Amino acid sequence: MTKWLQLEDFAAARRRVDGAVHRTPLLSFRTLGRLNGTNVWLKCENLQKTGSFKVRGALNAIATLSPGERARGVITISAGNHAQAVAWAAGRAGARAVVVMPEGAARTKVEAAAGYGAEIVLHGDAAMAFAEARRRAHEEGLVFLHPFDAEPVVAGHGSTGLEVGEDIPGRTVVVVPVGGGGQIAGIAGALAATGRLAGRGRVRVFGVEPEGAPGMRRSLDEGRPATLDAVRTLADGLAPPMAGELNYRYVARFAEDVVLVSDDEILSAMRLLLTRAKLVAEPSGAAAAAALMFGRIPVTPGETVVALVSGGNVDDDMVVRALREGAPWP
Amino acid sequence: MTKWLQLEDFAAARRRVDGAVHRTPLLSFRTLGRLNGTNVWLKCENLQKTGSFKVRGALNAIATLSPGERARGVITISAGNHAQAVAWAAGRAGARAVVVMPEGAARTKVEAAAGYGAEIVLHGDAAMAFAEARRRAHEEGLVFLHPFDAEPVVAGHGSTGLEVGEDIPGRTVVVVPVGGGGQIAGIAGALAATGRLAGRGRVRVFGVEPEGAPGMRRSLDEGRPATLDAVRTLADGLAPPMAGELNYRYVARFAEDVVLVSDDEILSAMRLLLTRAKLVAEPSGAAAAAALMFGRIPVTPGETVVALVSGGNVDDDMVVRALREGAPWP
Repeated sequence: MTKWLQLEDFAAARRRVDGAVHRTPLLSFRTLGRLNGTNVWLKCENLQKTGSFKVRGALNAIATLSPGERARGVITISAGNHAQAVAWAAGRAGARAVVVMPEGAARTKVEAAAGYGAEIVLHGDAAMAFAEARRRAHEEGLVFLHPFDAEPVVAGHGSTGLEVGEDIPGRTVVVVPVGGGGQIAGIAGALAATGRLAGRGRVRVFGVEPEGAPGMRRSLDEGRPATLDAVRTLADGLAPPMAGELNYRYVARFAEDVVLVSDDEILSAMRLLLTRAKLVAEPSGAAAAAALMFGRIPVTPGETVVALVSGGNVDDDMVVRALREGAPWP
Repeated sequence: MTKWLQLEDFAAARRRVDGAVHRTPLLSFRTLGRLNGTNVWLKCENLQKTGSFKVRGALNAIATLSPGERARGVITISAGNHAQAVAWAAGRAGARAVVVMPEGAARTKVEAAAGYGAEIVLHGDAAMAFAEARRRAHEEGLVFLHPFDAEPVVAGHGSTGLEVGEDIPGRTVVVVPVGGGGQIAGIAGALAATGRLAGRGRVRVFGVEPEGAPGMRRSLDEGRPATLDAVRTLADGLAPPMAGELNYRYVARFAEDVVLVSDDEILSAMRLLLTRAKLVAEPSGAAAAAALMFGRIPVTPGETVVALVSGGNVDDDMVVRALREGAPWP
């Protein structure tokens, strides 16, 4: 039996992150809404501190460490955004941070994490980097911070759900990119805790994964957390080799469904966000917009829809590629 | 003697535009502030309806027409952003809109203005297009809406100044790109009308022009509105062939100074905004950030600074060029 995070847990996490992270703007995006008669809003976590939503979970995780744990320092594994978030949050707390990153991590993300003061270890692919972080945590006595599958992380990400719930009081569809599932678990869990998943003003939460990294989709299909043999997607932030076990339970319980988008669709959504919303999203951050753009989310005309733009940390070459290869808006 | 717009004029204009235009977000931009120890905020008019600040002036100008004038329809001249703004505002008011654009106008801006329902006439360069718009206004009985040098336009742009003044109550430096000068006239005029240009919490307003189109700079140097023989800048929105006469008087009276930036500096600021602020700015929209980035504005450590990001309507190729040619951030 899962003991779900309660409203007081989400409220406590929010108090820890409020003021330190931005209450990111919710911007209307008429272009996308006109496609199917909905009112689309973008929740701009690409404008969040460090350029992604990850600071919410990282900050709450580090804030809930004991003084002794903080003194030992933390270690984590990340393809990038969680790395920056932990580096930033640890820096604020005066704690040592070691971040293991796969060798293929985006250059800008490696540099940014180092810039926030973390010690960077580049090691193998994502699975190998995970093992290396666990090994070093054991050997060096560092506290291992899971990048997505841990209650303090989920509780921190819940703050986004609370903000959206306050900003849009009525019936809403919320669309969230899914990597390990920490963000969607927090958002859906927090909205559930506030009673917003039922009743007239109910919120429906959908997840979006890349076709090449469908860890949560497969977990739902198989009825248990799945591990992928291989992942292949441009959306580096959505490419952990497994769905989080805790997060899987939140998604299975509180989300409506998880849908898939292709890398080409993600590039097209990046282009649409650049040219029409004037926002830089990384591939992972454009996945929710892609799902709406290509009709993967069952919405009805007149409905209010929130797409999480979860991050904006992207190498220049990928921005150029989106502008060159993304499908033009009709 | 200029009869300055009074607080009640700015307040009335604001009531006309409020609700129809976005109260755009003011986003902190630590990267730029760290350069000189200031607290930099971006006023994101690139996230405004139609992608630029121009809707504020256009909407107020059309809202203050008589019913008879509205029935005749309007005509204007614009390299792009004012075109879209008038097209959008006229569409809302159910009025016919004809927009004369120079033949070199950015493709995206021409298409966008047409998309909002305006009749587009491509004609010569900026000066020729001005003349053509005046000619057609006379021949076809259309109301000529000046793109920047008219009180209703200035009053509409004042709403930005009122918003910034409310959002930042203390001592502030506000940096505004200058083309014809409508935006800076409105912002400085509105802040003056609220008493914010004097006293302890005083606001200082600076303008920024491209080196290749220094109409307002030259006007200040010569002590009267200057007309340029030629302009040469990537910042198409800052390239009208003359400073507005009315706007010149507002700038001379209420602004601290007008500084110049090069096209290369503008490209570098565009790149910085893309990679660090996750915002798409057009060249004109990046001019204020460029002036701060390259030390053109006399600021003191600890000061609060607002850079107007005035627009985000830019062809893909220019975004690619900024990423390729803009100087990397140190």
